[in-house]
Amino acid sequence: MTSHLALMSCLLVLLLSLDKFLLHYLKKRWLSGGSIIPRISSGAPSKSRRSMAAAGSGAKWSETAMLVIDMQKDFVDPAMGSPLLVAGGEAVVPTVAEAVAVARERGIFVIWVVREHDPSGSDVEVFRRHFYSGGKGPTAKGLKGAELADGLVIKKGEYKLVKTRFSAFFATHLDSVLKTSGIKNLVIVGVQTPNCIRQTVFDAVALDYEKVTVIIDATAAARPEIHLSNIRDMKNIGVETPTLEEWRR
Amino acid sequence: MTSHLALMSCLLVLLLSLDKFLLHYLKKRWLSGGSIIPRISSGAPSKSRRSMAAAGSGAKWSETAMLVIDMQKDFVDPAMGSPLLVAGGEAVVPTVAEAVAVARERGIFVIWVVREHDPSGSDVEVFRRHFYSGGKGPTAKGLKGAELADGLVIKKGEYKLVKTRFSAFFATHLDSVLKTSGIKNLVIVGVQTPNCIRQTVFDAVALDYEKVTVIIDATAAARPEIHLSNIRDMKNIGVETPTLEEWRR
Amino acid sequence: MTSHLALMSCLLVLLLSLDKFLLHYLKKRWLSGGSIIPRISSGAPSKSRRSMAAAGSGAKWSETAMLVIDMQKDFVDPAMGSPLLVAGGEAVVPTVAEAVAVARERGIFVIWVVREHDPSGSDVEVFRRHFYSGGKGPTAKGLKGAELADGLVIKKGEYKLVKTRFSAFFATHLDSVLKTSGIKNLVIVGVQTPNCIRQTVFDAVALDYEKVTVIIDATAAARPEIHLSNIRDMKNIGVETPTLEEWRR
Amino acid sequence: MTSHLALMSCLLVLLLSLDKFLLHYLKKRWLSGGSIIPRISSGAPSKSRRSMAAAGSGAKWSETAMLVIDMQKDFVDPAMGSPLLVAGGEAVVPTVAEAVAVARERGIFVIWVVREHDPSGSDVEVFRRHFYSGGKGPTAKGLKGAELADGLVIKKGEYKLVKTRFSAFFATHLDSVLKTSGIKNLVIVGVQTPNCIRQTVFDAVALDYEKVTVIIDATAAARPEIHLSNIRDMKNIGVETPTLEEWRR
Repeated sequence: MTSHLALMSCLLVLLLSLDKFLLHYLKKRWLSGGSIIPRISSGAPSKSRRSMAAAGSGAKWSETAMLVIDMQKDFVDPAMGSPLLVAGGEAVVPTVAEAVAVARERGIFVIWVVREHDPSGSDVEVFRRHFYSGGKGPTAKGLKGAELADGLVIKKGEYKLVKTRFSAFFATHLDSVLKTSGIKNLVIVGVQTPNCIRQTVFDAVALDYEKVTVIIDATAAARPEIHLSNIRDMKNIGVETPTLEEWRR
Repeated sequence: MTSHLALMSCLLVLLLSLDKFLLHYLKKRWLSGGSIIPRISSGAPSKSRRSMAAAGSGAKWSETAMLVIDMQKDFVDPAMGSPLLVAGGEAVVPTVAEAVAVARERGIFVIWVVREHDPSGSDVEVFRRHFYSGGKGPTAKGLKGAELADGLVIKKGEYKLVKTRFSAFFATHLDSVLKTSGIKNLVIVGVQTPNCIRQTVFDAVALDYEKVTVIIDATAAARPEIHLSNIRDMKNIGVETPTLEEWRR
Repeated sequence: MTSHLALMSCLLVLLLSLDKFLLHYLKKRWLSGGSIIPRISSGAPSKSRRSMAAAGSGAKWSETAMLVIDMQKDFVDPAMGSPLLVAGGEAVVPTVAEAVAVARERGIFVIWVVREHDPSGSDVEVFRRHFYSGGKGPTAKGLKGAELADGLVIKKGEYKLVKTRFSAFFATHLDSVLKTSGIKNLVIVGVQTPNCIRQTVFDAVALDYEKVTVIIDATAAARPEIHLSNIRDMKNIGVETPTLEEWRR
Repeated sequence: MTSHLALMSCLLVLLLSLDKFLLHYLKKRWLSGGSIIPRISSGAPSKSRRSMAAAGSGAKWSETAMLVIDMQKDFVDPAMGSPLLVAGGEAVVPTVAEAVAVARERGIFVIWVVREHDPSGSDVEVFRRHFYSGGKGPTAKGLKGAELADGLVIKKGEYKLVKTRFSAFFATHLDSVLKTSGIKNLVIVGVQTPNCIRQTVFDAVALDYEKVTVIIDATAAARPEIHLSNIRDMKNIGVETPTLEEWRR
């Protein structure tokens, strides 16, 4: 028992000290095994690698959309004092802004997915409804907490989509907008990894988008190990998980 | 760097040696912190505990359904040689059978959620479509691999629901059947934790079922740490995660 | 052939001269037969009549919502010059306003369902997309045509729901808001009968709302015979179709 | 008043005497006006006509699916004594069979959409649930009434889709199968016009299928005027409404 506890302590120390370098390291060593998607054992290069290369050509970007998810003050700005603040959120704002800049250069369709709730809370998940009273609550329509984080701006030609649950596809017309715009590939950034990011990603896979990419240093969770385990699970169903540096090449 | 590798090795050893005892232990120590759902700081007992108690009364079971997910030969029986076998699946068949028995005793509505695909693969996720050819493929309609694992049987009054994606709610009439049957609470068993179980659970929460319960030793994944990290994330959005022993009390 | 044409002419004259009196008359004589819903031949009073009576009690109104659909300037105000003006729309604005007033008195939850489209047209039905260019188009977000008709105002405690297709339930979170608000019955007013009204009504029936009511003189179509034939079809699947006068009793 | 009644009588006689000739006649004269879709007043040929021509080329049929809806014994075979028999259903069985034959020749993907309900009635619309008891009810799974009408057979390579509500798209994976099969155009036959046909058609339009075609003599309703008024409304939102003879050219 004691040795187990010792190991657990080591593990915690290790995880809490995760930095960008380690993140990259782990991504390469740890996540590379254990995929639940059996590989086709032909001699062909893996689909991921091929499509990543193909995506480099200009033509493909017109079939790609970037979903920027929940980058609102109540989720990423500690100054708001929101009960739904994502611990790791503020740190990724600059990377998200940079990812959006790259998307714009490439002519990628940028979609800003935000939560906006009625101040009554009547369109919030039941388990969060107690946060709403007196015309206030996290990301309530018209309040400051619902605004995008400082430094993020919706430009002309970009689209704003309001959702009321984790997944950007749940009870929204997002799939409709994407499909009729000829979008086949999605690139996802924002917060937070285990909930809104992951649910959007799994729904995108269920909806058969050809390539779904999560930029792992432009997404965040409350704790690094939560972020990492969810990246692992998404990778296991065929999702691409580059860093911004890798994706912008 | 070397010490990091050493720690990682320790971690792997630790995870691979996880047994039932440790699972319980971890559940209590590790998962108890870090919840992203801020607790209401009134003196009231936590909702979870109250509703668990309330659920003990007979009345509640008539508003509860058990979803038994993907307990089909191709997912849990190694003899089938399916490319989609879930490594930890076979081990939980007896616990799932026991959970179903308890549900029946309590008069809980049992719903058997299964995948059944057209042998052409035309209704399978695009990224798995290469498994289907020559009239064969995992859980193809009419083939043995689509049958329930040995020992599991659908009884009269129970419902069979066919799905084609991870979530039991995705593009199915499950929500309709449940809501018009007066079901408010869900108990979930089956395979596998990061995909079909978790997606069903998150959709159930998005659909505002009042109480969603995952019996953690009647669900399984490819590896224990995948199972555990997903249980942690579900717990973090308010899902109950008892063992069968705890749930049957 | 000539006599057929003569009869057709008579028919057209007849339909174009339809007035309120005739509408009531037809409703009673013409629609009463031909229902495709076989009646249960017990001696019990018809369900419709019973539930209408029951609905008179105060308790029931708390489980009822009124959906006010598409009462926006571009649909009902000829002065806007919108290509999507509904010919019969302007005439029902006062009746809709009165219906809303009755709903408020009764404590019915009022939901204002509106179309609001991106000026790019990217979230409009493909077959209507040619109406959008130069930052303009019917009910484009922020433009005057998207506003409610003069005389209609959203009051505190009421809910505004944005949709992008005919049915108020299509790719929206309306069902979620209604179900978690405990709503079981719907009363529907607005424009226009064959499209947004009917699609919302049929979806409401498919979603198993217990009682769906369309106030027939607070809804309108391009021509009376279109209005009437759709009321007939809705009645045939169990929808209640009172006049405002009948409903307010 | 008397003259109004006289005209109504004339109208009824007229409608009840509708034959194929008249149907064509009405289609051209009556339905041509009053469209709610404003035409683009450029000199260009109408989109409908162009796409109908284009569809004649072989290439297009690979992007077309035929939906055969509800052609089950309980809906079209009077011998079954089903309470849900569609009066005009039996008469169109041969035309439906012929339409399917044409589709097969053209290589069109044929999808057989059927209702199959649990004998308990738990997945039936609430307003029809009283038909189910003692393990019986209209189109109950496994019973003869759920079988296709005599003369209709599902061939290899064709797809069977089970639905539980009017629209073939409501709570089913039909859109998923169609979209991932590259289908952009739909041709619809079966019963009955105001309910399952129309709801499927309106949902198809909402889902932005490029061309939606209803073969008007391979669909049927309880009465000719119900059939006709619904064809009119579908035509008004851009749906093609040829006869089989016109479509097969």
